Amino acid sequence: MIDVGKDAAENLRKLREQKPLVHNITNYVVMNFTANSLLAMGALPVMAHAENEVEEMASIAGALVINIGTLSDPWIRAMFLAGKAANKNDIPVILDPVGAGATSFRTNTAKQLITELDIAVIRGNASEMLSLSGEDSRTKGVDSIHTVEDAAQAAVELALELDAVIAITGEKDLVTDGDTVFRVNNGHKLMGMVTGSGCVATAAIAAFMAVNDNFLRATAFALGYFGLAGQWSAIKNTRPGSFKVGLVDSLYDIGSDDLMTGLKLEVMHEA
Amino acid sequence: MIDVGKDAAENLRKLREQKPLVHNITNYVVMNFTANSLLAMGALPVMAHAENEVEEMASIAGALVINIGTLSDPWIRAMFLAGKAANKNDIPVILDPVGAGATSFRTNTAKQLITELDIAVIRGNASEMLSLSGEDSRTKGVDSIHTVEDAAQAAVELALELDAVIAITGEKDLVTDGDTVFRVNNGHKLMGMVTGSGCVATAAIAAFMAVNDNFLRATAFALGYFGLAGQWSAIKNTRPGSFKVGLVDSLYDIGSDDLMTGLKLEVMHEA
Amino acid sequence: MIDVGKDAAENLRKLREQKPLVHNITNYVVMNFTANSLLAMGALPVMAHAENEVEEMASIAGALVINIGTLSDPWIRAMFLAGKAANKNDIPVILDPVGAGATSFRTNTAKQLITELDIAVIRGNASEMLSLSGEDSRTKGVDSIHTVEDAAQAAVELALELDAVIAITGEKDLVTDGDTVFRVNNGHKLMGMVTGSGCVATAAIAAFMAVNDNFLRATAFALGYFGLAGQWSAIKNTRPGSFKVGLVDSLYDIGSDDLMTGLKLEVMHEA
Repeated sequence: MIDVGKDAAENLRKLREQKPLVHNITNYVVMNFTANSLLAMGALPVMAHAENEVEEMASIAGALVINIGTLSDPWIRAMFLAGKAANKNDIPVILDPVGAGATSFRTNTAKQLITELDIAVIRGNASEMLSLSGEDSRTKGVDSIHTVEDAAQAAVELALELDAVIAITGEKDLVTDGDTVFRVNNGHKLMGMVTGSGCVATAAIAAFMAVNDNFLRATAFALGYFGLAGQWSAIKNTRPGSFKVGLVDSLYDIGSDDLMTGLKLEVMHEA
Repeated sequence: MIDVGKDAAENLRKLREQKPLVHNITNYVVMNFTANSLLAMGALPVMAHAENEVEEMASIAGALVINIGTLSDPWIRAMFLAGKAANKNDIPVILDPVGAGATSFRTNTAKQLITELDIAVIRGNASEMLSLSGEDSRTKGVDSIHTVEDAAQAAVELALELDAVIAITGEKDLVTDGDTVFRVNNGHKLMGMVTGSGCVATAAIAAFMAVNDNFLRATAFALGYFGLAGQWSAIKNTRPGSFKVGLVDSLYDIGSDDLMTGLKLEVMHEA
Repeated sequence: MIDVGKDAAENLRKLREQKPLVHNITNYVVMNFTANSLLAMGALPVMAHAENEVEEMASIAGALVINIGTLSDPWIRAMFLAGKAANKNDIPVILDPVGAGATSFRTNTAKQLITELDIAVIRGNASEMLSLSGEDSRTKGVDSIHTVEDAAQAAVELALELDAVIAITGEKDLVTDGDTVFRVNNGHKLMGMVTGSGCVATAAIAAFMAVNDNFLRATAFALGYFGLAGQWSAIKNTRPGSFKVGLVDSLYDIGSDDLMTGLKLEVMHEA
């Protein structure tokens, strides 16, 4: 465990030293919150979605986020272009399948993205992940109606099938590459009252991946760090408006040492 | 009055119990604020605007918000598709004609929407409402240059013509179905300094309508609740940045009993 | 110097009295923050980007902001339409070339805009400004890798070539019309941790220009005012989430007299 904490601290330290550019093709609702959170972490965010430029932008980034939260046809085309450019340049891609399961448009787009692109990490809630596994899952809009446990088995299978890291976030987060399974016990229930907290978790993973080739660990560390920021914010803030402000403040405040001591990462199964 | 307060409290209680999904086709400026406010109220927001999915999304929602604040042709097509799907499935639709009167594009789109769709409630400011009534109203961008009183008669006539509830918000809000006229005396002047406070009021009405078939009352209750949140926030916050944060906090804080005692609803005319 | 302070105070006083409409064609990331900031300053924001309405909207505005932060083809077409309508109606246009230099799409679009439109002011960071001057500048996404000093000479040349005011913002801001050069020493380093603070600076200039025909001074005053708001916010807020909230509060709080005494404007070179 101490080893893991040190490793996480080193990941955060490198992130702040290297300030990687994170290219986000993400939804309208969370763009501002995502950009501010990435800045607070120490990364440099850029949002670009035009087919005219996404290949060029993705090629100079440290990681690419594809988030399907507010989809339309031109954006889907841009996601494929950016994803292929990232793949070609060995830039890690993370997918956030927001609302997969809610409409067939979202489910199908998410499935097509994971089929045609080389995705390093997928992060979603339990309902979204089940819908990607071919289960007949229905989400209530973009909120999960399943628990993380419900989707644990599907996550392991999906990870093996896609050779990717799968992260299911919820009360306790689960991260797996199909062999090792981590549980991240950081976090606070008010995070579920802030729109886009899942999307920002995804962006945090991208930032950690940009400086850590061990994507399984980068994912777990980023979720631990983000969850810890929620815990820190909740100390002073008990309501969602001020909690959100405090969350950004806490992302900024948490140092490498704080992450080392605050990370609550449990190894459920090791390869 | 006591009866009205109890009824409002019951509406809020049901909203929190049932957590209705509110489908928003809304403008870019207010998406984040709207989603966070809906979560704070107890509803589940979803934003989706692609023609590929709006019918499916609207069909599983508890209410549909159509807000024309940042229009373009593909979004207009999606508004009609979503609106027709909602109508077919008896899901209530609320229209926010942001900036009607400012450009003919907005005025014409709003008029076409109320002609072709079955709209349950329209909420706007006085200038917007006058422009829908065929008056030669000009707004200053998206801000009203008329008082609620200026548009009161037009609201009653529009309500009768469309068989809809009309809500004009301003210093004092007016809500009418053409027969009964309510005045909502909750609210605070700082709300006018927060972009999208009108749009969030519209979303609040949608959330209340999703669990209350009496749309006249649902509209008045939602505006009273939202105005009360403004009053609560203003107790501690005297400037617009922090006031906005406090508004979301207050939406979360206000309980059913608080609404029962805090609602300031005046019956101006009863059918 | 006293004269400059009085002039700045008068500019802010007029802005609050006349409440000019500022039409923004800006990027998704900053729309909400921009609108709230403009309201806090005393201006009326409107966001509209559809080709169907931008000419009409620009024609009734006091100033037009063109910000290329999240570009796409339809938006570019709208930028040209709006810009030409503004030019025709003698409404000042300000360009924010966000990310010029990062992709050729952005660099080319920005160059085309300054060629085909009559732009009164351009505000950007040093890397963006160098890329407009034909230097082979690369930005890291939307963040500058150059200092203001690096781009000072290019700014003077660009101002003369375009007959426009050029503002480069950074640690110290530089404002020039090619003859006079101002340095604005207001500001705080936390502003760089808030996404869109540059974009809001641009919107502030637009608001000041809408009521002051001396665009050189309007630009310097607006940057001084915005920087002062950063200083005020930093007194109480040391972290980016709460700093941003305090920035909007401070824009609202700062009165004309505060600006007169707080403005730190240095004349580096006078024509």
